[in-house]
Amino acid sequence: MKSTTTILAILLFIMISFASCINQSEDGGTITFGTEIQQDATAAVLARMMKAKDEAISEIKFEKGTYHFYPDKGLEEFCHISNHCDVMIRTAFPIRDFKKLTIDGQGSKFIFHGIMIPFLIDHSKNITVKNLSIDWYEPFHSEGLIIANDEVKKTFDMKISEEYPYEIRNGQIYFIKEYYEHNLGQTILYDPARKAITFNTEKYTNLTTVKKAKVRRNLDRIHYKYEVDFRGPEYKKLGREDRLFVEELKPGVVRIHNHGKKLPQVGMILSAKGEQGFNRVAPAFRLTHTYGFNANNVTVHHAGGMGLIAENSADLVLDGFNVTPSNGRMVSTTADATHFVGCRGKVILRNCTLTNQLDDASNIHGTYQKIVDVLDDYRIGVRMGHSQQQGFVVGIPNDTLGLVRLSKSFQPYHNLTIKSIQYINGRYQIITLNEKLPKTVKEGDLVENLSAYPELLVENCNISNNRARGLLLSTPKKSIIRNNYFSTEMEAILIPVESGHWYESGNGSNIIITDNVFQDCNHSGLNRGIIRFETDDDNENIAFHNIEITNNKINQFDNWILEITNTEKLLFKGNTITNSGTFPKLFPENPAITIKASKDIVFEGNKYSGDAKKILVADKSLPNLIFN
Amino acid sequence: MKSTTTILAILLFIMISFASCINQSEDGGTITFGTEIQQDATAAVLARMMKAKDEAISEIKFEKGTYHFYPDKGLEEFCHISNHCDVMIRTAFPIRDFKKLTIDGQGSKFIFHGIMIPFLIDHSKNITVKNLSIDWYEPFHSEGLIIANDEVKKTFDMKISEEYPYEIRNGQIYFIKEYYEHNLGQTILYDPARKAITFNTEKYTNLTTVKKAKVRRNLDRIHYKYEVDFRGPEYKKLGREDRLFVEELKPGVVRIHNHGKKLPQVGMILSAKGEQGFNRVAPAFRLTHTYGFNANNVTVHHAGGMGLIAENSADLVLDGFNVTPSNGRMVSTTADATHFVGCRGKVILRNCTLTNQLDDASNIHGTYQKIVDVLDDYRIGVRMGHSQQQGFVVGIPNDTLGLVRLSKSFQPYHNLTIKSIQYINGRYQIITLNEKLPKTVKEGDLVENLSAYPELLVENCNISNNRARGLLLSTPKKSIIRNNYFSTEMEAILIPVESGHWYESGNGSNIIITDNVFQDCNHSGLNRGIIRFETDDDNENIAFHNIEITNNKINQFDNWILEITNTEKLLFKGNTITNSGTFPKLFPENPAITIKASKDIVFEGNKYSGDAKKILVADKSLPNLIFN
Repeated sequence: MKSTTTILAILLFIMISFASCINQSEDGGTITFGTEIQQDATAAVLARMMKAKDEAISEIKFEKGTYHFYPDKGLEEFCHISNHCDVMIRTAFPIRDFKKLTIDGQGSKFIFHGIMIPFLIDHSKNITVKNLSIDWYEPFHSEGLIIANDEVKKTFDMKISEEYPYEIRNGQIYFIKEYYEHNLGQTILYDPARKAITFNTEKYTNLTTVKKAKVRRNLDRIHYKYEVDFRGPEYKKLGREDRLFVEELKPGVVRIHNHGKKLPQVGMILSAKGEQGFNRVAPAFRLTHTYGFNANNVTVHHAGGMGLIAENSADLVLDGFNVTPSNGRMVSTTADATHFVGCRGKVILRNCTLTNQLDDASNIHGTYQKIVDVLDDYRIGVRMGHSQQQGFVVGIPNDTLGLVRLSKSFQPYHNLTIKSIQYINGRYQIITLNEKLPKTVKEGDLVENLSAYPELLVENCNISNNRARGLLLSTPKKSIIRNNYFSTEMEAILIPVESGHWYESGNGSNIIITDNVFQDCNHSGLNRGIIRFETDDDNENIAFHNIEITNNKINQFDNWILEITNTEKLLFKGNTITNSGTFPKLFPENPAITIKASKDIVFEGNKYSGDAKKILVADKSLPNLIFN
Repeated sequence: MKSTTTILAILLFIMISFASCINQSEDGGTITFGTEIQQDATAAVLARMMKAKDEAISEIKFEKGTYHFYPDKGLEEFCHISNHCDVMIRTAFPIRDFKKLTIDGQGSKFIFHGIMIPFLIDHSKNITVKNLSIDWYEPFHSEGLIIANDEVKKTFDMKISEEYPYEIRNGQIYFIKEYYEHNLGQTILYDPARKAITFNTEKYTNLTTVKKAKVRRNLDRIHYKYEVDFRGPEYKKLGREDRLFVEELKPGVVRIHNHGKKLPQVGMILSAKGEQGFNRVAPAFRLTHTYGFNANNVTVHHAGGMGLIAENSADLVLDGFNVTPSNGRMVSTTADATHFVGCRGKVILRNCTLTNQLDDASNIHGTYQKIVDVLDDYRIGVRMGHSQQQGFVVGIPNDTLGLVRLSKSFQPYHNLTIKSIQYINGRYQIITLNEKLPKTVKEGDLVENLSAYPELLVENCNISNNRARGLLLSTPKKSIIRNNYFSTEMEAILIPVESGHWYESGNGSNIIITDNVFQDCNHSGLNRGIIRFETDDDNENIAFHNIEITNNKINQFDNWILEITNTEKLLFKGNTITNSGTFPKLFPENPAITIKASKDIVFEGNKYSGDAKKILVADKSLPNLIFN
């Protein structure tokens, strides 16, 4: 026995020695990091990244292991990130101005701490990240088990495990992390039996955390010279105070008083992620102005924001890019799994499992920016409408910019090309055009970049158990949604035109939705179709063109399947619609299909074996339409 | 009459036409802006500033008028500002890489709105700003009149005028501005009869706004791998909850409950500026890496921070640079009037009126940075100790860096020179040295830049009615403090060595304090001398050298005048000390002069006509010293 131990000890010594040799070996542009840096890999990785201009890197490999990344010695950068907070982050991987780089984790786990962006990729080409998983040591959200409720006193009790330290201040609960804290803020219930959002959760959550403040004096004396976004974080607390009151019953058990919706059910898990506008600080991947990106065999278990947010980038291929929770958590990322703003070329999601995130699986759109100054014949001043679009630059020289007046048409009334853009601040930029502005342009009109929409392919993906939608499609280029599985809390596929709040541009067109399975989508309690076309500008103009929805299997607990508005040329063919019986119907009076303000809609060879009293209801635009 | 009206109208028309001609006239590098831009001058001024690289500017003049500057179209920049918050600001004057520029207001008033820095001056030479005043339309603090108090119920009532809109949320009062809001936070009382800080205010304020949170669970499970600054803003709320409770009695009158100190007296004015760590967001002048700066005939009526903060700059002459409140306000700037960090060459304050600011009139120092990593023979990783030093770069190539171990000596134990500094993040930088590090260096030692201390002249200034100190002197180069008037709430002149909290480096030496008047300083209630030497490292080593205090008139209500510690070679000569009788004595048992751990202290030809029971008390270091 003794000699075996000795041999093992020697072997271990050799292995350790070998491992320490591996630390940052370099071989013709390939760096290999060894596991000696795993306690905090940030300083070593960053030091090498910061030398990359002088000593080129083409590949970075990690010996298989679990690598921690702390922010303390990470490179800082203030980031305006689309659909996230504007935030000072830290990173070990500032991938800027790289022509070609592969990062191969070789099966490693990367564990991040605090407000970091694991991969900050900017103005680069041909970047590949593969064979690694990303997680956070302490998540940006917290989870608690509902253990009691009291309909008379309007309270419910929640058990909070040791992994979520908390304190109560002024009757409010704060979840304390190593580098971060959050209050209840945005909340939603998970059903641990299904490991998915609780059925009909809109009746129970969000928790009603705020009410109007009663005492407000002389606020009418404040003069706002310019447009103010009172939804922005700087005004978020104005006029609101706490409605809920939290008391601790015993260590690890708190009682929450004064919730205004239905009381959360015993056995459900409440996830809380803090205030909207403050709770998206650390996406896993952030890409800007990057042409050519591949993620293969990458799993994002958590992020304090999105799994991947890409802006102004092109040719992005996510193959085996997974978003799934770890460590028994209900929640994976606290925002969308993936999100693409102003991208072009191709966007491909293939063989991806995108589950349990707290927002959409993917959202593909451009931005509307509002013309607030017509400065001269060639120049306009534009304002970013949504606080989380601050800093977004709408395009690059020679891109085609459409001038849009949505009340008149969903299509641009005039096209121009960009000469240059002068960045002034997060809310305001000056765009110079190559051509003269039309006389008809006026302040209040929108611009959108017609060159910056991608072709999209989403194939063989599992999109389920998340809050919110599956896919939001706002690219007029070709989109193919093929052979996926959807089981989402809101719409499986939403095709919107939206200008009033999110300022997300683009009219989804040329879309093929084929061979997918839709299983019990839209169980949140919202009264909507599970494939839904929607404009928030209430008119009868055509927004969406050339749609094919074919050969899908739709097995749904409720009636409403397809909600068509403002659409021209749609073929719905070969689809099978069944009733799942999984949940009780929420809206049994609904038909299966509704159609408004549309043209050229064709139904062909579908099988309906659901039990809606009416299958199809169309408005006066298509009085004679029949379901087949 | 009618023809007179017509003539006047024509004249007015001509004047307006003439005025609009003036708009941005250019003459050989001199730009003149006319008053047509006064409603919001930001866009026009910024547009011209942003062209300055291609079309050089040597002088910018403003036709005399009142110019508003809004942030909406101002250039944004994220700033780490020493002794301020780290903050995204906007500016109309990004003065970067200028070789020579004069800005002449010609008597104009500049009124700013929101989180702006009026003059953001970086890496420039020979900049002059003259003949203008700076104010904010809505201040970053608020003021209320105490109208009642109740000793039994421990409440006091405050009247808030219409110019300070407010709301009450969760029992706390928030003062709402156009682009900003603040709660009570840091507060102090002003006596409107004296338009100065209330006598003995330490007994009354700060208001005791917070108490410890009672419910805290599992926080001991949080593992902090690296040093944490729990005083930093990100941890500021941890473990604390509100102690005060605010109710509105009627519009404009609020009652504040539960204050723990003495209740503010009726007739006093309470100024409130919000939470420490969050309330210094908009200094009037910010200079970095600027060599040659003149301010002449400039008045700063307000700033949400300091009047002027200069870092890593040289040869700064403030002549007729005044900080005084406007519009009947008690408060001018919400922080120091002026502040100089790591500056060199000469710093001159001459003919300045620095009054009613909420912190010191001036503070001149370097920074200590803590060695946290000895990376190799030539490189150290340093940590910024105070959150408001984040981002501060300690020096430039070839500056002499001292290695300091304060427990051993106030002087460096070894000198080296800087080769380069790699900026990693606000808290962490890597310094490469030209010479090998000594073997004795260890983590925990400090560095200070011995090349980055200025010579100082403060002459013919009125320093009074402010919170806190007059001058903090931490430059070992020559300082002359001559012919000034001091009437400050804390020490008139403080000469410190301070490493534990503020990390402000430098041992004041070679100082001449002559021909000044000290009138009733240190009336805050703190038990200190009005000229005070002080180290926070409790040892008997010498910190301060070669001081002359001569021919000053000290007319003081209380006893303690001079507090000497750790000093070598000090001459106190020809000074006249009288008792003013202005306020009752707070510490009648004190002597006039105390001496600890010092050498070579000489008193000569002074006149003492105060009534302290003992004039001089020295410790064992100078057992035989006599006052003369």
